[in-house]
Amino acid sequence: MDSIPASHLKIADAKRADIGNTSTQYAKAFFQTLPFDAVTVAPYMGEDSVRPFLEFAGKWTILLGLTSNPGAADFELKKIITETEELEEGVHVTRHETSYLYETVLKQAADWGSPDNLMFVIGATQADEFANIRKCVPEHFFLVPGVGAQGGSLKEISEKAMTKDCGILVNVSRAIIFASDKEDYAGAARKMAMQYQQEMSGFLGGK
Amino acid sequence: MDSIPASHLKIADAKRADIGNTSTQYAKAFFQTLPFDAVTVAPYMGEDSVRPFLEFAGKWTILLGLTSNPGAADFELKKIITETEELEEGVHVTRHETSYLYETVLKQAADWGSPDNLMFVIGATQADEFANIRKCVPEHFFLVPGVGAQGGSLKEISEKAMTKDCGILVNVSRAIIFASDKEDYAGAARKMAMQYQQEMSGFLGGK
Repeated sequence: MDSIPASHLKIADAKRADIGNTSTQYAKAFFQTLPFDAVTVAPYMGEDSVRPFLEFAGKWTILLGLTSNPGAADFELKKIITETEELEEGVHVTRHETSYLYETVLKQAADWGSPDNLMFVIGATQADEFANIRKCVPEHFFLVPGVGAQGGSLKEISEKAMTKDCGILVNVSRAIIFASDKEDYAGAARKMAMQYQQEMSGFLGGK
Repeated sequence: MDSIPASHLKIADAKRADIGNTSTQYAKAFFQTLPFDAVTVAPYMGEDSVRPFLEFAGKWTILLGLTSNPGAADFELKKIITETEELEEGVHVTRHETSYLYETVLKQAADWGSPDNLMFVIGATQADEFANIRKCVPEHFFLVPGVGAQGGSLKEISEKAMTKDCGILVNVSRAIIFASDKEDYAGAARKMAMQYQQEMSGFLGGK
């Protein structure tokens, strides 16, 4: 990794998380032993499994929100029901609200960090949910996989999820590294990377 | 790891899971490159992130169910609402059922594997839920962390979660490896391990 310039953001897409003391060790491994700036983290085990990553100054925690794979439908898109009790004019009122599991994750986790140390993974294949997702967390950056091999559209996510500060960090892996399996693989990968860069540049426009 | 006898079950408590092709590479790393018999897996990303682990013959996938840490309350213990539509005597009937996220995970994932290649992580600190958990998955083994340093009771989980084939694999880590921080650490760890082994042996009784 010494050949990667220090100015480049280095993300470990490791999807870690464990009980607190173990998460602390993972965070040390990625942020101190290895020179990563960011690491992806899985939310299932809750706050104490995520917080240790957020405690490293100048580093980014990128929490899974709504992922790009088919299995996102299995749990992330399940409906959560939340019961709240309120006293209204002397009467106890019980309200039921429903939201997707991934929305609950975004909203709760937004309080664990800030837009300066916490991003969310939002798959480019989940275009129908982009507007809703931006409402849940208007200021956080999204790391967006799923463009290219998985079929997500750079145009669509740019239109629906960009903020005034850009707000999206789009990852294209397989479409670039496997652009060719012949001897011209290096040139083909470079060409494909430049193509995505130029397309993104267009969407960024005057921002 | 060459010093561990082949007869011992080797579990990588790695809590991995990623999109399918990446999960396949993780599974290869733990089951083929490294000599592990089992690996713990996180369920958030759903079926296609878990199945690659289940495809290795003679190996175990141990999926997070209800974990032992405080953060289990954040998402695992959230209520999921499921809507089912049925036609009853010519009339469409909509039913709403609620269950905890962890229950939904146990029930759905039970169909992805079998009691012969799939276990679940159930924390010993979650004693109130044991009876309910056994109802969801009556035959699967549970890997049970949380005894010792985290305060779970070996007696309670043995009474409530054992099956006729035992059905629980209890993990005690910190209470044994940190039994002493003085020069007698090896002897203290051995003594503590034997103590847990004898206690468990008593609960197993004639089984």
